[in-house]
Amino acid sequence: VRTGVRRPGCPLCEGFGGELIARDDRLRVVLIDEPLHPGFLRVIWHDHVAEMGELSRAERDHVMAVVFETEAVLRTVLSPDKINLASLGNAVPHLHWHVIARWHDDAQFPASVWSVAADRDPQVGLARSRAVRERLSELRAYCRSRLLGLGLSEFR
Amino acid sequence: VRTGVRRPGCPLCEGFGGELIARDDRLRVVLIDEPLHPGFLRVIWHDHVAEMGELSRAERDHVMAVVFETEAVLRTVLSPDKINLASLGNAVPHLHWHVIARWHDDAQFPASVWSVAADRDPQVGLARSRAVRERLSELRAYCRSRLLGLGLSEFR
Repeated sequence: VRTGVRRPGCPLCEGFGGELIARDDRLRVVLIDEPLHPGFLRVIWHDHVAEMGELSRAERDHVMAVVFETEAVLRTVLSPDKINLASLGNAVPHLHWHVIARWHDDAQFPASVWSVAADRDPQVGLARSRAVRERLSELRAYCRSRLLGLGLSEFR
Repeated sequence: VRTGVRRPGCPLCEGFGGELIARDDRLRVVLIDEPLHPGFLRVIWHDHVAEMGELSRAERDHVMAVVFETEAVLRTVLSPDKINLASLGNAVPHLHWHVIARWHDDAQFPASVWSVAADRDPQVGLARSRAVRERLSELRAYCRSRLLGLGLSEFR
């Protein structure tokens, strides 16, 4: 991991920000333990940078190549109804991308995962979440294998 | 505009989806009239495609070059506190990117624009919105000039 710009108190400077799946000297991919949305990966830039526009073009290209590879991993392993991609960073202004598998019967569809939960039986969303969790071992393994192809290293 | 895949009933197939700022044969950039978030551009793929992963690598690169150019436009003209980038498409599964300027005193910060409004005096968010609106003419002109550099054409 490159030892670059770190900001005391930033959770993404002081921790991995999730279960580390793979990394290189610029960024890492983590699996997020989000109860209602378990098919949730994040691509996190190691340095404390707020905006994509602060990166060089080559750095942006690398970030997006990894984001689109994680999208492909989620689509291949989980066959979701939709992929959500987002880089917000309002609460934690340290560059990270959310890559989220969504289903028509998940807890919030068609609203965003940052919205109030959909007005439906919570058991339906929980059933979807359980079904996705059963595929997480396969997701981890396939994600590592695909990211090796982009030059990232596994983390064990 | 390329006449490609269109889906009857899709609002982004049947309309521009906002005030058209610039376009090429693959995509367009529109300004969104969102009362609480006027510094809001969208990059919309012309064809009815749901996911970035359905595009070729060259097409993805083009979309992201335009997204990052619109990010640069918002940062230069509006000096926001944060940029939000997102491609969700749960409600309208026709590929589009939200590129949104955010401020600490806007109506929802640090929540997403899809979240419940922040618990604060609505007049503060409205004042920010009014201040941003005063810059929209400049934003349109600068956005067109920057996108010409990526091969897009102005729309008048």
